[in-house]
Amino acid sequence: MDKLYVIKIGGNIIDDETKLSLFLKEFANIDGNKILVHGGGKLATKLADQLGIASKYINGRRITDEATIDVVIMIYGGLINKKIVAKLQALQCNAIGLTGADANIIPATKRPVNDIDYGFVGDVAVEELGFANLSLFLMSNLTPIIAPLTHDNKGQMLNTNADTIASSIAIALSILYDVQLIYSFEKSGVLMDVNDENSVIRSITPSSYQDLKSGKKIFEGMLPKLDNAFAALDNGVKKVIIGKAEQLNDLINGNGGTTIVNE
Amino acid sequence: MDKLYVIKIGGNIIDDETKLSLFLKEFANIDGNKILVHGGGKLATKLADQLGIASKYINGRRITDEATIDVVIMIYGGLINKKIVAKLQALQCNAIGLTGADANIIPATKRPVNDIDYGFVGDVAVEELGFANLSLFLMSNLTPIIAPLTHDNKGQMLNTNADTIASSIAIALSILYDVQLIYSFEKSGVLMDVNDENSVIRSITPSSYQDLKSGKKIFEGMLPKLDNAFAALDNGVKKVIIGKAEQLNDLINGNGGTTIVNE
Repeated sequence: MDKLYVIKIGGNIIDDETKLSLFLKEFANIDGNKILVHGGGKLATKLADQLGIASKYINGRRITDEATIDVVIMIYGGLINKKIVAKLQALQCNAIGLTGADANIIPATKRPVNDIDYGFVGDVAVEELGFANLSLFLMSNLTPIIAPLTHDNKGQMLNTNADTIASSIAIALSILYDVQLIYSFEKSGVLMDVNDENSVIRSITPSSYQDLKSGKKIFEGMLPKLDNAFAALDNGVKKVIIGKAEQLNDLINGNGGTTIVNE
Repeated sequence: MDKLYVIKIGGNIIDDETKLSLFLKEFANIDGNKILVHGGGKLATKLADQLGIASKYINGRRITDEATIDVVIMIYGGLINKKIVAKLQALQCNAIGLTGADANIIPATKRPVNDIDYGFVGDVAVEELGFANLSLFLMSNLTPIIAPLTHDNKGQMLNTNADTIASSIAIALSILYDVQLIYSFEKSGVLMDVNDENSVIRSITPSSYQDLKSGKKIFEGMLPKLDNAFAALDNGVKKVIIGKAEQLNDLINGNGGTTIVNE
C-alpha cells in the first residue's frame, strides 16, 4: 500500500506566523500522499470578543451556539483554511481546502443533549467518512487541508474537534493506505514534566500509558490526544507520533517526538 | 460534448434566506454538470462595520486593503460558501466549496497600481485557469461552489469580481463542455425600465446592444455584466442568460430572462 501522512497541526502554531511558515515548508516537502487537519487557534475567540459574542466553555470544551458557529465557520473554514492553502500553493503544494461538508467528506451527527448542551457540535462516525472522495483527491495529486468543521446532512454546519477529525480520517483511509498519524503542536512530544521540553517520553505503549495515567505523570490535556492515538492504532493506523510542529521532518524520520505503539 | 451550466448568483439573493433556498432547490435539481459562482452580498460590509473597518469604494468598486481581504475571506470563502455547500448537501447535491486558491483553479495577478490602488484585488487570465481540476470534480459528480476569491501563487489571497470569475470559468471549460452561462440575480432580466419588472428585454444582440447603450436605455450597472456576456460568447460559450434567481428553471428552459446572442 502507498504511504499516507495524516498530520494535525495545533492551534498555537496557527497563531504564530513564523512557526506556521516553518511547518508549512516542511509539510510541502513531504514526498507522497498527505492530508493536513488544522485546529482553530485563538482567532475565533478574538473575533467573537470583537463581535461581543461571549465564548462559553464547559470542562474546557467550547459551547457552540448559533452566533459562535458562524464565527468558527468564518475563522476555521474561511480565514485559517484559505491562508494555509494560499501559502502551500506558493510552495508548489497543490492544496485544496475542505470542511466536512465539502464533497460530503465528513458527515456528522449533532451531539445529543444530555447533561450539557454543546450546541452545534458534530460527532463523527468513522464508517460514514467519504474516503472515496478524499482518496480521489490524493490520487489526483491534491493535498486536502481540512478545517475542523462537519455537517449534519440537513443543511447545518457543525463544530468538531480537530484531533478527532484527524484520527477518524486516518482510520478511514487505512483501508487504502499505510497511514501514519502525526499530532503536531507547540511541545516537543508527550512530556514527563510539562515545563521541561527535554523530558519527552520517546515511546508509549498501552501498558506504560496505564502506568503514566495512574501515576498522574501526564498533563491532563494530553489524555484525549493519547486516547485518540490508541484508538487509531486499534483500527488500522500503522503509527502515531506526537511532537513539535516545526520539527515535522524529525517526527516523520523517527528523530523526535513521542511514538505511540500498540504492543 | 456534455452540457455544463455555469451559474452566477448575485449578492442580494444571498442576503435573503427565502430566495436563496428557492434558488438552491432549483439549482440542485439541474440534471448534469453545473458550477455555482456566488457573490458576496452585504455581509462583508456588515462584518467590516462591526469590526470598525471602513469600507472604501472608488467608482463603485471596493478597495481591498489588508483588513478587508481578511473580512472577505471570512465571509465569501467561509460563511457564505460553507452555508451554501451544507444546504446543497441536504438537497442531495454533492457540492464542494472552493476559492481560486483551492486546487489552484483560479490563479490571478494582483491588479497593478495605476491611478487607483485597488489593494488585494486579483485579475484573472482565462488561459491560466485550472480547468483540468474543475473538470475532474465534475466527472466525479461533484458540484463546485466557487467563492469570488483568487490567489497570486505567492501566498496571497485576492478579491475578484464574481461576474468575471463566472465568465472566465465558462470560457475555460468551453473547450470540454457545451457551456451555458447564467447570471442570476434579483431582477427578471435586463430591463428597459429599471423600475418595471415587466420590461424585460428578451434578447440582446451585439447590434441591439450598441443601440441600447447609445440610447442610454440600460441601467449602467448592467453594462459590465453584458460586456462579460459578449466576451464569453466570443470565446466559446454557447449561450448567456440573465434573469431572476428564483426562476432558474425558467431561465434554463428559455421561459424567462434575457438571452444574449452573438449574431
